[in-house]
Amino acid sequence: MPAPRESTDRAERASTASVGIYGASGTTGVELARLLHRHPDADVAFATSRSESGATLDAFDPAAPRIPLVHPDEADLASVDAVFLCVPHGTAGPLAERCVTAGVRVIDVSGDHRLRDADLHRRTYGSERSEALAERAVYGLTEFARDQVRDAKLVANPGCYATASILGLAPLAAAGFLTDLSIVDAKSGVSGAGRAPTATNHFCSVSEDVRPYKVGRVHRHVAEIEQELAAHDPEGRAHRIVFNPHLVPLERGIEATIVVRGADVDDVRSAYARTYEGEPFIRLLAPDETARIRAVARTNRADIGVCDVEGTDAVVVTVALDNLVKGAAGQAVQNLNVMLGLAETTGLEG
Amino acid sequence: MPAPRESTDRAERASTASVGIYGASGTTGVELARLLHRHPDADVAFATSRSESGATLDAFDPAAPRIPLVHPDEADLASVDAVFLCVPHGTAGPLAERCVTAGVRVIDVSGDHRLRDADLHRRTYGSERSEALAERAVYGLTEFARDQVRDAKLVANPGCYATASILGLAPLAAAGFLTDLSIVDAKSGVSGAGRAPTATNHFCSVSEDVRPYKVGRVHRHVAEIEQELAAHDPEGRAHRIVFNPHLVPLERGIEATIVVRGADVDDVRSAYARTYEGEPFIRLLAPDETARIRAVARTNRADIGVCDVEGTDAVVVTVALDNLVKGAAGQAVQNLNVMLGLAETTGLEG
Amino acid sequence: MPAPRESTDRAERASTASVGIYGASGTTGVELARLLHRHPDADVAFATSRSESGATLDAFDPAAPRIPLVHPDEADLASVDAVFLCVPHGTAGPLAERCVTAGVRVIDVSGDHRLRDADLHRRTYGSERSEALAERAVYGLTEFARDQVRDAKLVANPGCYATASILGLAPLAAAGFLTDLSIVDAKSGVSGAGRAPTATNHFCSVSEDVRPYKVGRVHRHVAEIEQELAAHDPEGRAHRIVFNPHLVPLERGIEATIVVRGADVDDVRSAYARTYEGEPFIRLLAPDETARIRAVARTNRADIGVCDVEGTDAVVVTVALDNLVKGAAGQAVQNLNVMLGLAETTGLEG
Amino acid sequence: MPAPRESTDRAERASTASVGIYGASGTTGVELARLLHRHPDADVAFATSRSESGATLDAFDPAAPRIPLVHPDEADLASVDAVFLCVPHGTAGPLAERCVTAGVRVIDVSGDHRLRDADLHRRTYGSERSEALAERAVYGLTEFARDQVRDAKLVANPGCYATASILGLAPLAAAGFLTDLSIVDAKSGVSGAGRAPTATNHFCSVSEDVRPYKVGRVHRHVAEIEQELAAHDPEGRAHRIVFNPHLVPLERGIEATIVVRGADVDDVRSAYARTYEGEPFIRLLAPDETARIRAVARTNRADIGVCDVEGTDAVVVTVALDNLVKGAAGQAVQNLNVMLGLAETTGLEG
Repeated sequence: MPAPRESTDRAERASTASVGIYGASGTTGVELARLLHRHPDADVAFATSRSESGATLDAFDPAAPRIPLVHPDEADLASVDAVFLCVPHGTAGPLAERCVTAGVRVIDVSGDHRLRDADLHRRTYGSERSEALAERAVYGLTEFARDQVRDAKLVANPGCYATASILGLAPLAAAGFLTDLSIVDAKSGVSGAGRAPTATNHFCSVSEDVRPYKVGRVHRHVAEIEQELAAHDPEGRAHRIVFNPHLVPLERGIEATIVVRGADVDDVRSAYARTYEGEPFIRLLAPDETARIRAVARTNRADIGVCDVEGTDAVVVTVALDNLVKGAAGQAVQNLNVMLGLAETTGLEG
Repeated sequence: MPAPRESTDRAERASTASVGIYGASGTTGVELARLLHRHPDADVAFATSRSESGATLDAFDPAAPRIPLVHPDEADLASVDAVFLCVPHGTAGPLAERCVTAGVRVIDVSGDHRLRDADLHRRTYGSERSEALAERAVYGLTEFARDQVRDAKLVANPGCYATASILGLAPLAAAGFLTDLSIVDAKSGVSGAGRAPTATNHFCSVSEDVRPYKVGRVHRHVAEIEQELAAHDPEGRAHRIVFNPHLVPLERGIEATIVVRGADVDDVRSAYARTYEGEPFIRLLAPDETARIRAVARTNRADIGVCDVEGTDAVVVTVALDNLVKGAAGQAVQNLNVMLGLAETTGLEG
Repeated sequence: MPAPRESTDRAERASTASVGIYGASGTTGVELARLLHRHPDADVAFATSRSESGATLDAFDPAAPRIPLVHPDEADLASVDAVFLCVPHGTAGPLAERCVTAGVRVIDVSGDHRLRDADLHRRTYGSERSEALAERAVYGLTEFARDQVRDAKLVANPGCYATASILGLAPLAAAGFLTDLSIVDAKSGVSGAGRAPTATNHFCSVSEDVRPYKVGRVHRHVAEIEQELAAHDPEGRAHRIVFNPHLVPLERGIEATIVVRGADVDDVRSAYARTYEGEPFIRLLAPDETARIRAVARTNRADIGVCDVEGTDAVVVTVALDNLVKGAAGQAVQNLNVMLGLAETTGLEG
Repeated sequence: MPAPRESTDRAERASTASVGIYGASGTTGVELARLLHRHPDADVAFATSRSESGATLDAFDPAAPRIPLVHPDEADLASVDAVFLCVPHGTAGPLAERCVTAGVRVIDVSGDHRLRDADLHRRTYGSERSEALAERAVYGLTEFARDQVRDAKLVANPGCYATASILGLAPLAAAGFLTDLSIVDAKSGVSGAGRAPTATNHFCSVSEDVRPYKVGRVHRHVAEIEQELAAHDPEGRAHRIVFNPHLVPLERGIEATIVVRGADVDDVRSAYARTYEGEPFIRLLAPDETARIRAVARTNRADIGVCDVEGTDAVVVTVALDNLVKGAAGQAVQNLNVMLGLAETTGLEG
């Protein structure tokens, strides 16, 4: 993997970067505002909300900074170096085009530019986008893409489940270890489903429950994960997965328990050790240790554990990350840092 | 499956049954006391606690009935028709022997009589037991064993994870559909780990976490599940599983998401429909519906959902039950009902 | 207090009662359906939902019985002995009138008939109602009103916070012990706020929070509580309270910590002991024991604890109950039992 | 109040401060390690644990930094400028003496030096301490004591409940507004009870409960609160409180709802505005807004809300803070900053 670049010329940069957040009142937007608020080298020039302009961000989350929300039409693109798009897919596509045309670099947190194949995108998201622009988008799982992110005009920030699954499976695809269907059993905190109140995220529906949903190959992130596994396979082979997501009663975090077949447990550990050596945000756990959410909550780190399954050809890999940080806003800031030539860890907790 | 027998001669029974609970202050003991307290045809003659005799049960759980706890030496075996053993494994073995010798029927909720093979038992639990007695024990997953339970002297009540896994996998083993390793990803509420306070069940350790533990083939229930799958296989073939348990922040309930390979989804559904037809405590969900804990909490019911995985040879089965009820105390009462010739649903919620 | 009447002529009753639930898909409606489903002497003839007719109740809560929902216009009033109104205030008023005119007895769970004074009602709820009918309504806190409930055409079922507060304060008002402002600090589970998803009951807003709201004398239940305190005062004096409600991260239950001044702690205990002697659903705790929610959850019981405050003239009273049971649906069933001449505890857990 | 001093000569300080933590494996110790780990001007030279030396801190909390724990006898006092005592009361007293004698400044997080009166201390804590040293201790509620903290040898860091209560009541005592018993109803997250596993902090005991405990004037923090109210009263008058603490199902945070009598609501607001003007860690909310835990969790801030109670002479004050931060470790760091002449906000989130 390309090494994270320590910014040696930091002192020479004339000023802090100026960024904008579109769709700031959603879960990811609020988390992004919180991270950028503490970021030493980036200032939030504007934060938009189509329906809530006039309010301040802390009206949506009492722990958010008191940043005023403006209508997107009032956002001054000329004032910023980069923007984050936290608007719904379908809306992000056209907005990204406008920003890039205006010379502003874009980190798209929606799903609008994650899938390279136009047909697959349409089938998965059903939303319009500029295919010309989509072709230039960089899939921004930073650990694998920092060289392209550095100069990208448009970064497609990965999905939360996708980040966990790809961190666990891509090194194995790259090493040629994925010879069979991989099984990913994922559990997510409720913030992954957004801020809009629904029957599903009502406290009395979530508490004291575990709820599997969209199991198999139905969840949108499956397309994104399988696309990246093929991309990491040295021969470009397709790799299917069974992806079973579950809603669990906690606010933030994803834990993915992955079962792969036919690989040697030591080879699997070595593949991770090699791939993630020196990575500030990836921690390979001791043999037979498992990854848990409490260890990574509110950080940009992903933990990875590898366990043998005695008497079988299976290996169990556990991955944990914070869906709002490494799975969304934190990785977006990590990508911003790369784009700005800053140390990748700036403003982030590892 | 042998049909649940409706007790037609209920009116003729001279009196309610009298039962005892050994180890009543533990999680399962308390749940059992609660269920028996409401049971119309059984009275609790004694409830024991070695360390807590003199207290009443509600000292351990404010929602428990105010039943006095006596020292086990004071328990009058002559006064009861049957006993439940909620004591730790290793202790249950000798106690079962004493009870059976005294002519009292035993439902052993511990692991001491679940594994038929003596070596496997010793490797798994490391505890002494009478092998002669163990040979006569009936593995009491009621839906599959009611004919033997009816006249059993000693019923080995299944483990909570084992009940969920076997309900999901045994019909497939019986139908010859298990041709590959099955993957069971299980999530359990905290009550599954017992009442003794530990660093692991401290509120501040559990909340906002998902924690995989003993993944692979390390958990004790694996032996029990694999034993039963072989028993259900018409040709007695061994079936290995990968069993990945997780601790999640809720009090009660187990959800198991199972991936099987090589079986047709309609055949799988048919196998369940056939096996569980008329079962009062098993509910087969509509196609593509998934089982969730809130639907079964505080009932003796298990829900089973079957989902196709498009483009693969995998089928996803979800099973949910209450670990304290169908996974422990409720199934114990279900077994008691069978032993007493009562309707199986007496005192239980379906 | 009038003693609960044991129904001695139960065997002579020709048939079980037939009841209807209006507004069954709300939180109280679902709880009521669950309780009535297990009730040995009452059948649910219809359950209505204006917006959700055609669905079954378990679509709104997976633990609810699978009762079909019909449009209120299809509900056959002629088929029932009594109805429960779980519709919003403002809607309950006219509906109650129609039912009573049709000769059907009504238990109104809304706030439409709780306040006797027409002006106070209008200021508090702003809703229309028939004042002629309101005058005939019985305020159904069963322990205090069973003699009037027995023959009532219309019972106004008390609010959840009001039930907890009145159980704690009315015996003191009756004994002349309330000589100063009483302070009620109440904490409620999220189910108290209903099933409609809002920003306030989103899991990610409730978890890890304690949130005071409508503190002082702003909450609607204040009017109801103060009305009843005056009614219990032998001289009809007004008693003001400070009522501070809080939203806490749990599903069900209310705990009220009440501070009264100027009364002797032993006198306070005696007043409760006298008032609640023989009451099946009220438990007076041992001196200095405090009431907690876990002890009463899913029961129709209220626990009351009395604690001295050394060196002051204050007494602390703690009251706990399940807001959905004794605070709503359970008390409604308790009232139904009284109206039907059944044992008050029928179908309820104490 | 003395204004927080902005450290203007920061650049001239030769080096970062070196500090030690005694009793680092407890809840407060871990939080302190976490805060100091991020502190730009302080390094943790040692962290001790009598029973767990050899382990690293993250063994006790997966989110803690991986700091090695040494036996207290191995801690090199000569290497540090200041120490934090997170050991139990009774142990802190003698340890403080040793440190002060060695010329090391002490911030005692235990209760050993909070109470000035020797008799009151003995009655409250029953622990030995050097009265000579206790006399020199500064009660370190920073907003009120920064001038004495600056040069203190020994700072007694306030209790969590005490911090919330004093922030709410001291300005009113100082203004002469406390003319009657004040009622404090406090709710605390489970971390307030420490890390040692007990029946009380077991997940299955805490979840779905609200539990009042030690109500009245029984809790240890009452002595500390009443001591400080007398100290703030211009005439030194005693002020009694009724203090009712509750355990609620969340990890961190305290909310205190305080009722005071006989004061004008505008005067109360003015007293807070005057007292806390310019304070970086105190936020006075808008009129009728209430303080909630989610707004302050993981920050060193306390929020204060003031609400009128129409028709009475009562005012309701709500205070929220994070018991582990402003209520313990954060305030300890705030005190360290003052002692070191740093900006008070260094390393803390407001």
